[in-house]
Amino acid sequence: MSLTSLVNHQIRLASRPVGLPNDSNWSHTTEGVTEPAEGGVLVKTLALSLDPAMRGWMNEGKSYIPPVGIGEVMRAGGVGKVIASKNPKFAVGDHVSAGLGVQEYMLIPEGEIKRSGLVKIDLRAGTLTQWLNVLGMPGMTGYFGLMDVGMPQVGETVVVSGAAGAVGQTVGQMAKIKGCRVVGIAGGAAKCDWVVKELGFDACIDYKAGPGAVRDGLKAHCPKGVDVYFDNVGGEILDTVLARINRKARIIICGAISQYNNTTPVQGPKNYLSLLVNRARMEGIVVFDYADRYHLAVAEMAGYLKDGRMKSKEDVVTGLNTFPDTLLKLFKGENFGKLVLQVAAD
Amino acid sequence: MSLTSLVNHQIRLASRPVGLPNDSNWSHTTEGVTEPAEGGVLVKTLALSLDPAMRGWMNEGKSYIPPVGIGEVMRAGGVGKVIASKNPKFAVGDHVSAGLGVQEYMLIPEGEIKRSGLVKIDLRAGTLTQWLNVLGMPGMTGYFGLMDVGMPQVGETVVVSGAAGAVGQTVGQMAKIKGCRVVGIAGGAAKCDWVVKELGFDACIDYKAGPGAVRDGLKAHCPKGVDVYFDNVGGEILDTVLARINRKARIIICGAISQYNNTTPVQGPKNYLSLLVNRARMEGIVVFDYADRYHLAVAEMAGYLKDGRMKSKEDVVTGLNTFPDTLLKLFKGENFGKLVLQVAAD
Repeated sequence: MSLTSLVNHQIRLASRPVGLPNDSNWSHTTEGVTEPAEGGVLVKTLALSLDPAMRGWMNEGKSYIPPVGIGEVMRAGGVGKVIASKNPKFAVGDHVSAGLGVQEYMLIPEGEIKRSGLVKIDLRAGTLTQWLNVLGMPGMTGYFGLMDVGMPQVGETVVVSGAAGAVGQTVGQMAKIKGCRVVGIAGGAAKCDWVVKELGFDACIDYKAGPGAVRDGLKAHCPKGVDVYFDNVGGEILDTVLARINRKARIIICGAISQYNNTTPVQGPKNYLSLLVNRARMEGIVVFDYADRYHLAVAEMAGYLKDGRMKSKEDVVTGLNTFPDTLLKLFKGENFGKLVLQVAAD
Repeated sequence: MSLTSLVNHQIRLASRPVGLPNDSNWSHTTEGVTEPAEGGVLVKTLALSLDPAMRGWMNEGKSYIPPVGIGEVMRAGGVGKVIASKNPKFAVGDHVSAGLGVQEYMLIPEGEIKRSGLVKIDLRAGTLTQWLNVLGMPGMTGYFGLMDVGMPQVGETVVVSGAAGAVGQTVGQMAKIKGCRVVGIAGGAAKCDWVVKELGFDACIDYKAGPGAVRDGLKAHCPKGVDVYFDNVGGEILDTVLARINRKARIIICGAISQYNNTTPVQGPKNYLSLLVNRARMEGIVVFDYADRYHLAVAEMAGYLKDGRMKSKEDVVTGLNTFPDTLLKLFKGENFGKLVLQVAAD
């Protein structure tokens, strides 16, 4: 089949959402596919990473990267396969990772290769979906956030929210490997069971178990207080953890999924003065800052995946067109494991 | 005059305030004065340091030091003179600094000397009131908060709130000495003028000048953004600065005077996700952690006081009995310079 007969289905940002995104915020378009010019690569999307950060990219205004423009293909990281190449570094059949966008094909001209983050991935190190999870952006976020900002020490207590999510899995398992007591916070008994029984966390608190569940759970499961808190959720949970931190605690601000769809102002942590009392630190992390060391974290964690010290779980939904609905699973806490949109079979 | 004929007037915490302290929270008592036993020292209070932190000590519950108990003499740091000593390290006539409490005399038994922080002070390094200001706790707080937590680099922009207060004076002048652009935030044109003209800050924003004054002032006076923010006030000002921080900014949480008398929950910084976007850090400081290096900071800043690179301003109110009213000046922003209660002439 010639490339020019292919149709590229795409999902574009049609308007900026207020609160939760809905169908009116998206447009479905099609385009033809063209051969790459000299130095360029054509990638077929196999799977896309759906992440809470996407909600931020849909807003207008300054963030750590520019917003997605109205009418642009929605930004998404993904894995795919090279189906045409005029670049000696990439061969047809290579598996790659890149910012592919929510579309079936992506033509990457030579000048865009660096910006797109296009790199080959080795399926001996991990499966395609693991390359979107522990070995991908979420894994890198968890690894460097925990290790570089959290600096966990043997015997310390590490708490992570969104524990069953992509970042949380990595954080908790890495903290266990580094000799910490690890307590997760997740929504629902099934996630909590999995985090403890499969991933080996010391405990997991079901924040949906009722009012006071997080407060009581921290009291029960963190008898020596909290030394490192990796925050993916913000809101009440952040405040509750702040009330139990130890002296010189480190709080990694990775995200605030509880606040992303607010139509009212973000809820600031009213217990932030616990930072003062405890000489503690709250620090933000953006994964891109660690790009020059991704390969080291991948090599380390691929080893743990191989020897069984680390596991990963992906929640795979199939079909590009399900993107608008599938994304919402994140904000309703319905995904169980890293949320992946499978676009095509390998 | 024999010591036993002296009367020690004291002010004790009678009840815990809700909101601003009032007269009903205090009791005025008198006690006799006794000779120190072997190893002990009797100190006559000359001047006391009135600090925003005092409001926190009046509350029940865990903080970085235990609360003042009901019925106890109110805690206060001060400077005084040894009037009787059975300790070879302290001679009658020595000037000293210690946690003297809001009272005219303090008997310090040998076993309490360390806990009271009793140390001799050298009036050649600074005046009595400077020993409560730049060379005292506020100065140490500003010095170590700025230098150890803020880590200002030459050419960076440092913003400090409460700029005309005790901590703010030290922070801003030290940051200038270290080669930074320094912008203060203070209440009223008089304080702002003084901070710029006398202390040499590059600019000072009058937060009382109207809605938007801080936002507009930061925009005008921090054209390269904010690298270090030393926060003494919390509330809206903290949020406004958070909106203008640079990548890898450091925010020192030293206090939150705008929140101390709240009868509603503390206002958390709703812009805290700026920490994420900017990979920035917010960290608390408690001065006592640096006690083993106070002498180094004192030596450095005494040199600056002597050569004129540093100035200090104290707002001195006379009379132990004025304490309840004088303390309120802090929370109304009425003090101009470090607030000192003079209890007796030297």
